[in-house]
Parts: sequence; structure tokens; C-alpha cells
Amino acid sequence: MKPQAAYDELLRRSRERALLASCAAVLAWDEDTYMPAGGAAHRADQLAYLAGLEHDQATDPRLGDLLDAVEDSDAAGAPAAAANVREWRRLYDRTSRLARPLVEETARVTSLAQQEWAAARRAADFGRFRPWLERVVALKRREADALGYDDEPYDALLEEYEPGARSRDLAGLFGVLRAELAPLAERLAAAPRQPDVGVLRRDYPADRQRAFGEAAAAALGFDFTRGRLDAAVHPSSVAVGPGDVRLTTRYDPHEFSDAFFSTLHEVGHGLYEQGLDAALTGQPAGDAPSLGLHESQARLWENAVGHGRAFWEHFYPLARRAFPEALADVALDDFHFAVNRVGPSPIRARADEVTYDLHVLARFELERALVSGELGAADVPAAWGEAYRRCLGLTPRDDAEGCLQDGHWAAGMFGYFPTYTLGNVFAAQLYARADADAGGLDAAFARGDFGGLLEWLRVKVHRRGAVVPAARLVEEAAGGPPDPRPLVAALRRKYGELYKAP
Amino acid sequence: MKPQAAYDELLRRSRERALLASCAAVLAWDEDTYMPAGGAAHRADQLAYLAGLEHDQATDPRLGDLLDAVEDSDAAGAPAAAANVREWRRLYDRTSRLARPLVEETARVTSLAQQEWAAARRAADFGRFRPWLERVVALKRREADALGYDDEPYDALLEEYEPGARSRDLAGLFGVLRAELAPLAERLAAAPRQPDVGVLRRDYPADRQRAFGEAAAAALGFDFTRGRLDAAVHPSSVAVGPGDVRLTTRYDPHEFSDAFFSTLHEVGHGLYEQGLDAALTGQPAGDAPSLGLHESQARLWENAVGHGRAFWEHFYPLARRAFPEALADVALDDFHFAVNRVGPSPIRARADEVTYDLHVLARFELERALVSGELGAADVPAAWGEAYRRCLGLTPRDDAEGCLQDGHWAAGMFGYFPTYTLGNVFAAQLYARADADAGGLDAAFARGDFGGLLEWLRVKVHRRGAVVPAARLVEEAAGGPPDPRPLVAALRRKYGELYKAP
Repeated sequence: MKPQAAYDELLRRSRERALLASCAAVLAWDEDTYMPAGGAAHRADQLAYLAGLEHDQATDPRLGDLLDAVEDSDAAGAPAAAANVREWRRLYDRTSRLARPLVEETARVTSLAQQEWAAARRAADFGRFRPWLERVVALKRREADALGYDDEPYDALLEEYEPGARSRDLAGLFGVLRAELAPLAERLAAAPRQPDVGVLRRDYPADRQRAFGEAAAAALGFDFTRGRLDAAVHPSSVAVGPGDVRLTTRYDPHEFSDAFFSTLHEVGHGLYEQGLDAALTGQPAGDAPSLGLHESQARLWENAVGHGRAFWEHFYPLARRAFPEALADVALDDFHFAVNRVGPSPIRARADEVTYDLHVLARFELERALVSGELGAADVPAAWGEAYRRCLGLTPRDDAEGCLQDGHWAAGMFGYFPTYTLGNVFAAQLYARADADAGGLDAAFARGDFGGLLEWLRVKVHRRGAVVPAARLVEEAAGGPPDPRPLVAALRRKYGELYKAP
Repeated sequence: MKPQAAYDELLRRSRERALLASCAAVLAWDEDTYMPAGGAAHRADQLAYLAGLEHDQATDPRLGDLLDAVEDSDAAGAPAAAANVREWRRLYDRTSRLARPLVEETARVTSLAQQEWAAARRAADFGRFRPWLERVVALKRREADALGYDDEPYDALLEEYEPGARSRDLAGLFGVLRAELAPLAERLAAAPRQPDVGVLRRDYPADRQRAFGEAAAAALGFDFTRGRLDAAVHPSSVAVGPGDVRLTTRYDPHEFSDAFFSTLHEVGHGLYEQGLDAALTGQPAGDAPSLGLHESQARLWENAVGHGRAFWEHFYPLARRAFPEALADVALDDFHFAVNRVGPSPIRARADEVTYDLHVLARFELERALVSGELGAADVPAAWGEAYRRCLGLTPRDDAEGCLQDGHWAAGMFGYFPTYTLGNVFAAQLYARADADAGGLDAAFARGDFGGLLEWLRVKVHRRGAVVPAARLVEEAAGGPPDPRPLVAALRRKYGELYKAP
């Protein structure tokens, strides 16, 4: 077969797989938002069937022949084509190494394990989840062996979420973060000046939270003719297609921060999806190169923008108009200090910017040890307690706020957690460079203008898709390779000023 | 292959096709309700791709081998299995007779024709739609020839929507309806006593219409844990799965009837879907045997129940509480008379019970002549005007309220219209029998109890699925073969009383 014909056929099949995946995306979004309870069992059948079709397509041996015909040919010469061929090969080789019985058993066991995890968490009883965690870990170890690795099995799993990332590098990165952030968090917790977070726990009617969140999303550049924001149990972002990006958040009428900053976080994911090159839809080159880079866009808008003083200079008068009962007696500085409170807490999902990566570090150490076999599933609660004492200086009250708090392991997502911290690291690097390029973004933010930052990200990140891998994209956009120091520097500067502590 | 193994394989494939179709159903519902405008092009790609997959599966020649192995064997002995094999064979033979180029051209031409139709209707300009109607008719004539027929080509198209129905029988049925209903409509229009329909055109806030419609749907037995009701441009009913039935309606804040009776109509479809035997999901035996029978359930709840005096004895006090500004000065009898106004109008979708089937008759005659070749597309406006003068005694003002009012022909749905009238005919037969079996249903309705009727329909219609064809199911449930006379009798009785006219 001629290389160009092989490339065209690979492209056709890639678009078909993407269409199938995007059908599943609509079904998943619908499950989270509008599906009646009675539809759950049938929805599981639908999604399992689509996943099976997708797996069959992804492992069709014909793909191997087509790739052989196109690799090292002119047809794979242009940057986007080269990226496509590289990703098609990577995905085909990975997927083909996983025998169907292992894939099916993993799907079945993780589906049941997630139900058992939810029940165990409700009962705060790790013992109930332990046999399931053992089975999931055993399956992921088999998966890592089937996939292959150079240094350690955890690398094989990392590759699923962050292509090219390696445990050894991550350990170095986390080492820097721990050495800097743990003492910073301690200093801030001990500082005499502390915020009053009670103002965030007043009455914030859900419908007004929704209107305020939508207004903020639109002001940041989220295009509601090509997207939506709905209520759901968990915040999420689902890209159905280039013109159809669905965000969800959740509203607690007695708390302001959770819904609002979740919305900004998902808006960050959504702006990335809306900014991808629509001409490359259905091609790996037109997609995000890694979860860490995707997360960076979410954390950048949530934290560097949305937790900043300049952002609230513009939005606080609007917030006061939306919630006069709650905020009439609260000054801008006090509100801004409250949404930026730092303090160690047992729950990752509610952690502040400074301690967040320490939660991720604990999980990274534990799951790396589980996958290598150094740590047995039965010993997880003890190891979790030890890690939290060491990283965050606290002891969880029970398993529910300890090792059962996150569902990732039940779902088999070993290797996912580090992408949260890579997201924070990348975001700090990108934001520092965008800020420098603009000669300071705060003045624009203070007058409600976020278009300059968005355009910088469109050019430097969004439109580039996966034409280069994530680490190289960050290097080209930010001017240096992935590096935790800009994150540390930004946090020290910001919180030193806020807490008036050195 | 052993017959039982062949049957099991056919069943597996049937369930897979149904899963695929139900994924498309979610996407279609989403398109009508929540999809942002920017998602339209990608949605068309998704639906076309799923339709292609489904067609490939439905025409896989292996199905023919499997059917050969199972037919006339013990594996096709039980009633549900026999119905499945009968339907699988019918569908496989039909689909396989249609060459892929014809299917693809029909999909492409009808997709474009629907856009041209919408534009032509907006401009009230048939000339713009004429070439597209010519192309669609030519394609449907080719389709009928490919499918084959005994008497006339229209029968081949009817078979798609109402298996077993024949033009000749329908012509007889419509003859009875025309002879009885046209003079009845004339007498009622000339009666001295006329309702004041102005009371239906007062202020009815949309959110209260929604709440009132949902309350009525629930009271009739629609299970909202296994279904939804949303707003959309067109009322519809979409069954995703046995526990997931989605209804839509539309709200005009200055008109009561359209949303409310559309809701009851869709509730009728929805109750049928919620009442199908979940154990037969994914099998033809567990589905409705025809569109006419499906429509009968919608028309029964909309008209025989929802337009009845006993229904409003229960619901009118609730309606007055929901819409006090509009209804405080309106007596129950006047309201009930208003929602039952009879009068010839040019638009089918807004027609009353008495003239509705005369609209359908006009379309049946015209599309039968188009498909046989007796009528050319260019002559449709003139023929439409002539048919409306003859059947309804009126002349449309322009093409928009004449032959362009419905989109069925642009969509290639020739043979669909008669199922509306079959629905009315079946509904009247079934309702008369249910009423007789209960010794009168009105007393229960007047106290808000609709469970007796629903249970009768569950047993006699819903749970039976397609184990027998529609006409035989009606015969077994109602005690006589399909017959227009119970419909005529019910309408004469009801409207004679309402208008106090003989």
C-alpha cells in the first residue's frame, strides 16, 4: 500500500474512533446531568458496548500494517501528520499489548470495585474495600507487565495519562515541592493574621450562584453558543465536539467557594477544548497531549486568575450585587483573604493551593509502592496515616477522610494523580511567562479584560494541540522545561503578601 | 449450525443493534433539548456514523444464514421467539433489498430536502421545494420497486411503519371516516351553541404550565424515576431504554392547549414504552408492533381521557389553582367546551378530533398518487387545494398553510401519515372495550384515579409487545378487527352532547 493511501485510511479510522468516543461522551454527560435514575442499568450496557466497539477498532491488526506502510515515509512528514502517526503507533502498541481477557476483567472488577468503594466510604470501613483494592492492584500490576517499562512498573501506567513522564523525574519534582511547600503551609497556619472564612458560609441562593458563575465563565471567554454549564453531583468537563463543550458544577446554597471555583476550574478545561484547532478534530494532533497539560489550563484559570486580587477587583462588586445579604458587610480584602485561606485539611478535593500538591505527593508515593509490590493493599490505611503525618502534619479521623476519600484507585486509575501536580507546575510556568509577555496582566483583569491572557494561551497552548509532547510544549511556551520552582515562587510571593508573613 | 445456537446469535446481534439505536436516541433527544448551537455539525456526523454502523449490522449476510438455520425449527417455537424470528426476517429481507447507494442517496437528499422545505415554508413558496420533492418521490418510487409489492408501490412504503397494512384496506377505512366525519364537522360548525376559545388564550406562565403538565403526567401514571419531560421546539417521545423515556413539549405563555395536550399525547407514548416487557428489551417481540398502535396510546390518553368531562372534573380545580388569573371567571363546562371546539382549519397539527382524520385522508390520497406516478410533484399545490376543498371545505391561504405545512415528505416519510388515523381508530376501539370492561371509567377519572385504565392497557397492549401483529393485537384486546365505526360512534355521541346538536 502507498504511504499516502495508508495515512488516509489511518485518518479515516481515527475520525471514526473519535466519533464513537464522542457518542460515549454525550452519554456520560447525560448520565451525570439529566438521565432518570431508572436509566442507569441500560446506560451501563450502552457504554460497555461502545467501549467494546472502540477497543475492537483500536486493536484491529490492520492498523499495524497501515502504520508499517506510513512510518518513515513522506506521508508522515508534516508536523501534524508526524504527531498523528506517533500517537497512533503509541496507542496501537499499548492497546494491542493488553489481551482482551485482561481488559474485560479490569473493566468488570473496577466497575464492581467502584460500588464497593462507595459503600466502604459511606461506612468509613477500609476492610470492606480491601479485597477489591487487592484485585485492582493485581490487575494493574499485570497490565504494567504486559505494557512493559524500563525502570519500574508504575511508569507503564503513568504513560496512559502523561505520555513520557517517568517516576524518577516526578519524585524529584515532588521532592522540591515538599521541601518548600510543607514549611510554607506551616508558617501560614501559624501566622497571627488569619482570614474569616465564615463569610463564605452564609446564604448564597443556588440560582444566583448559577447566574454569577455563568456570567464569570462568559467574561473569561467561555463561548456559551459552543458549550453549556449544568448542575451535577461532581464538577466535570466533557468535550463532545469542537463546538460542544459541557461543563458541570454543584451548588451548595450555604457555601460560595465550592461551586464558583469548581466552575472556574472547569471553564479552564473548557476554554482549552474550545480553543483546539477544529480542523484537526478526530486526530491525535488536534487533541491535548497529556492530562497534566489539560489540568494546567484548569488550575491556571481557577488559581492564578480566579484566586487573584485583580480578578476580584473586577468581580467583587458584581458578587456583592448578586449576594447583597451575604456580602454587604464584607470588604474586598477580607473576601479575597477568605477565599485564599491556607490550612492543612485531610481532603484533597478541598485543599488550598499551598497544600494541594502535598496531598498528591502522598498518593504518588503510595500508588508507586502498591504497583511495585513494596506496599500491600492491607497496609494502605497505616501507610496513608504515616504519609499524611509526614506530608501534611495531620492524621485522618477515619478511613472515609483517609485512604477512601478518592475513587481513582477503585476505578483502576493508577498514575492519574501526578497529573494534578504537573498541571499546577505547568500552570505556574505558563502564567509567569504570559504575565511577563503582557508586562503584567493584573491591570487588564481589574477592568474585566481577560482576552489578552486567553489569546496568549490560544496561540501558545490550545491551537498547538499535540503537535509536540506536553513537556516540550511547556518548554516552548514558557521558555524552560517543566520546573516546580515558578510554582513555589508564585505561592511564596502571593501568600507572603496575603498573610503578611515572610 | 444448530438452530438454538443460531437463535442465540441472532438475539445477541439484535440486542447490539438495539443498543446502538438507543445511543442514537440519546443523541437525538439531546439535539432537541440541551445541545448548544455550535454542536450541530458534529452531531450530524455522529448520527450519520451510528446509522451507518446500524445499517452494516442489519444487512450483514450472516444474518440470512442464521435465519435460514433457525426458521421452522423448535428454536423459533415459543411465541416471543417466533415473533422475533418473523421480525428479524422481515427486516433483514427489507433492508437487504435496498442497495447501499440508494440508501445513502436517500439519506443525503432527504437531509438537504428538509432544509429546503423549511426555507420554502418560511417563504410560503412551493416552487422552491418542488425540485426536491421530485427527487424524494423518485427515490421513494425506486425504493418501493426494490422492496416489491403485490398491488401498488405505496404498500411497500406503508410496510415500513405499519406492517401488514394495505392501501386498499386503508382506502375503505378512510371512506367510512369521510362519509361520517365531514358532515358531522359541518353540522357542529353550523350549530348555534359555540364555545369561547378566548379563555384558552389568556396568560398561562410557562413555569406553571410545566408544573401543571408534570403533575398531570404523574397522575396518569407516567413514572418520573424512569422518564423526563423537557421543553423543546417540537413535542416528542424518545425511548432510550426500558427505564428511560424522554418526553418533550413546548410552552406558549399565552396559550394553554398546545403544551398541555401535547404533553398528554407524549405521555400516552411514554406510558406505552414504560409498560413494555423489560425482559424483552432489544428484541422485536418486546417492542411496539406498529406506529399505528403506538399512536393509539398517545391519542387515547390525549383525547378519550384528556379531552373528557370526567378528566376535567378532577383536574379543573387544580388548573384554576395553577392559573387563577386566567380561569377564575371560567366555569368547568365552558372550559371543557373550549378545549373541545370543532372547526375546520388548514393545519393538521392543530386540528380537533373530528376533522383530524380528514387532514390525514387528504395526505393519504396525495402521497398514494405521488408514489404511483398518477400525480406529479409540480401539481401538488393544486391537488392539495382540491383535496382540502373536498375533505374539509376550505382553501389554504398559501403554500405554507397548505402543502408545505408538514415535513414528512421532505424527510422521505411516505406511508407514515395513515398511522395517525389508525391510531385514532385503534384508540377508540380499545377505549370502548376498556370502558365496558370497567363498567364505565368516568367515575374513577372524576376522582383522579387512572390506574384501572392503565392496568387494562398494560395487560391488553403494553406487555404484549409485538408477539402478535398490531391488527391482531387490537382484535384480541378490543374484541373485533380494526374498524372505524367505534371512533365515529364515540365522536357523534360526545359532540352531539357538547354542542347539543343531533
